[in-house]
Amino acid sequence: MRVVQKFGGSSVADADSIKRVARRIVATQQRGLEVVVVISAMGDTTDELMELALKVSPQPRARELDMLLTAGERMSAALLAMAINDLGATARSFTGSQAGVITTGTHGDARIIDITPGRIVSALDDGDIVIVAGFQGVSQTTKDVTTLGRGASDTTAVALAAALHASHCEIYSDVDGVFTADPRIVPGARRIPEICYEDMLEMAANGAKILHLRCVEYARRENVPVHVRSSFSDRPGTWVKDINYEEGGMEQPLISGVAHDRSEAKITIVGVPDQVGAAASIFTTVADADINIDMIVQNVSREHEARTDISFTLAQQDGAKAIKALRAVQEQIGFFDVLYNDQVGKVSVVGVGMRSHPGVTARFFRALADAGVNIGMISTSEIRISVVVDIDDVDRAVRAGHTAFGLDSDEQAIVYAGTGR
Amino acid sequence: MRVVQKFGGSSVADADSIKRVARRIVATQQRGLEVVVVISAMGDTTDELMELALKVSPQPRARELDMLLTAGERMSAALLAMAINDLGATARSFTGSQAGVITTGTHGDARIIDITPGRIVSALDDGDIVIVAGFQGVSQTTKDVTTLGRGASDTTAVALAAALHASHCEIYSDVDGVFTADPRIVPGARRIPEICYEDMLEMAANGAKILHLRCVEYARRENVPVHVRSSFSDRPGTWVKDINYEEGGMEQPLISGVAHDRSEAKITIVGVPDQVGAAASIFTTVADADINIDMIVQNVSREHEARTDISFTLAQQDGAKAIKALRAVQEQIGFFDVLYNDQVGKVSVVGVGMRSHPGVTARFFRALADAGVNIGMISTSEIRISVVVDIDDVDRAVRAGHTAFGLDSDEQAIVYAGTGR
Repeated sequence: MRVVQKFGGSSVADADSIKRVARRIVATQQRGLEVVVVISAMGDTTDELMELALKVSPQPRARELDMLLTAGERMSAALLAMAINDLGATARSFTGSQAGVITTGTHGDARIIDITPGRIVSALDDGDIVIVAGFQGVSQTTKDVTTLGRGASDTTAVALAAALHASHCEIYSDVDGVFTADPRIVPGARRIPEICYEDMLEMAANGAKILHLRCVEYARRENVPVHVRSSFSDRPGTWVKDINYEEGGMEQPLISGVAHDRSEAKITIVGVPDQVGAAASIFTTVADADINIDMIVQNVSREHEARTDISFTLAQQDGAKAIKALRAVQEQIGFFDVLYNDQVGKVSVVGVGMRSHPGVTARFFRALADAGVNIGMISTSEIRISVVVDIDDVDRAVRAGHTAFGLDSDEQAIVYAGTGR
Repeated sequence: MRVVQKFGGSSVADADSIKRVARRIVATQQRGLEVVVVISAMGDTTDELMELALKVSPQPRARELDMLLTAGERMSAALLAMAINDLGATARSFTGSQAGVITTGTHGDARIIDITPGRIVSALDDGDIVIVAGFQGVSQTTKDVTTLGRGASDTTAVALAAALHASHCEIYSDVDGVFTADPRIVPGARRIPEICYEDMLEMAANGAKILHLRCVEYARRENVPVHVRSSFSDRPGTWVKDINYEEGGMEQPLISGVAHDRSEAKITIVGVPDQVGAAASIFTTVADADINIDMIVQNVSREHEARTDISFTLAQQDGAKAIKALRAVQEQIGFFDVLYNDQVGKVSVVGVGMRSHPGVTARFFRALADAGVNIGMISTSEIRISVVVDIDDVDRAVRAGHTAFGLDSDEQAIVYAGTGR
């Protein structure tokens, strides 16, 4: 049986951490498993390399930046292999390119196209532990070294698990798993033992930082069970996997968890002419500036004015660029003003169980009202309800949602869909 | 016309140095040349990585050490390419593997077998400046990353110059070229404008640190002219090349220079039985311990004792290992004792011109005697005379040799072979 384990930068921040992780990996092999490890760069290495690059060039060319940054994982992979070799096991390190991680050519944000793990399989056949440098691959077209974007070592791990037909992929972190809410905000938040891909996707997309969105997407597509757990303990963490509630006889939770995100901002375009194509022009402008938007709300048009307001949310880091792009078309489109507000937060309740339960929205909004939280914007999917609130209300909104759906830790911890009827 | 330029670690020690080197490289391209640059790791990077490795593992596996250390040149290559791209030229960096540097599989000390520079040529055809990470390659058999041994970026540069049919290879350093002696010892030492491969080989093998032996060997074999020069000036340095004195009408120097080496030690084995095979046993023992020896002197056997003394020199770093190996066979071979002395130095006069001049040895020894230097051991080749002297006599011996062969800087600086007759 094969397993892929991924350790992040904080797990290999110094020589002692590397040795600790090495012991853990060797213990896994000693339990009779074939082990492939995906490793991130040590501690702050990537940030330090980036700083060095900016000292040399104000805007480093992306190809060369990838060449530079990939040195980080290469170093940690080699060091980890050395540490394992001292424990009586044998390990071989591979770069992304050597491991057969084939990607698109978009430097800094490449996508994995294919994995050709010939060298990995042959090392496993030799009885070796395989260490793969995460976050990197090789462009299918140019054969240049690429990076998958920050934090994408998780995706490398899941992609390798799929290509190697591993039983599952273990993502190690400094927390015990996925929680029903951020325990720093909700002290009674509980570890979720199992969560389906859909819920994990929504949690990740709406602020839960434990797993990267692309990693979860990949895991769902390839049906790779992911075990998110702590590198500091042997306790079970959270299994992200396909859950058939009917078949397993399990009760489906109404809500899996409450996610929040303070990294967005809200832009309001005031006095948009109520004409065909005005909204299209606005969002074409934003899209052309290569900015992703999240929620959109268009106010009901005030008929006597023939004008409306449009609000949308986007990542704070794109704020200045968006404002600039919109100002440039203000006259042409003919709106009155652009307002920017980054003192907002998004709070989402997530759960596939809500599909069959129309009362969820009402219960959430009632809880927010009772907590005195004013709702700025609303957006829903089939399995998620998100609200934008004032940044000072985020914590209260998270706690209110968590309590309202019975997620607070006590003997009757989870409100199951079955009991809500 | 193509040129290969090699810059060492001190030339790219920080962001400012990298930018300075970048300007130099772009200026070369602007003179109409196709430029391939071989780069070492920044400043002390390699030592720092080695330190890190030793923190993780007392004896890091060689394959993984190569994986780790090669990150150094990868980083400097990427940074240099970024800096060049900011100057309006375009540069692409390549690892040794990407550049097609095919080597043997001896990790830490691999030899270049072949260069397959397809990607380099194609980048040059695109008008790009090519930056190659020095000191590294890829094993022909295992496809693993290899290093060529410390300082071997010079060899990478010469090998690439040969494979790319470059007009010549420029090795940049912090001095102006090859000198007739170390200017710190001989203030009147002169830069040698041209030196033949043979003399440069002997200089390098006998302590002149400016070029690595293997690099000169490669240059001679492939007939690549090497220009050794300073990265801090535009002055001409030293051309190492094939010199046909007959044809060029040049006068051949009797002596090219005086080299010295303080890194050796002398071992004397006392009371070796004067029997067939005793010396063979001793040197087999040393060879089996993987120790290279330099000079050997066997004393004339004292007939009434049927015993002799054997002395040889070796690198100081191998001293402890050699003593241990010899002590282990002392009883079996039956010698009396092993003496170790690292308070010695080797001084060599080098020059193809001495082939036709039997008087050179006499002149050198006379000069040493006049300077009060006692000669411990003597070794000669067709174009070199070396003596081992007490370490405190090294400077005096160098100066004596330098003066004796008229190398001191003045208007009649060089003693040409023709004038010595």
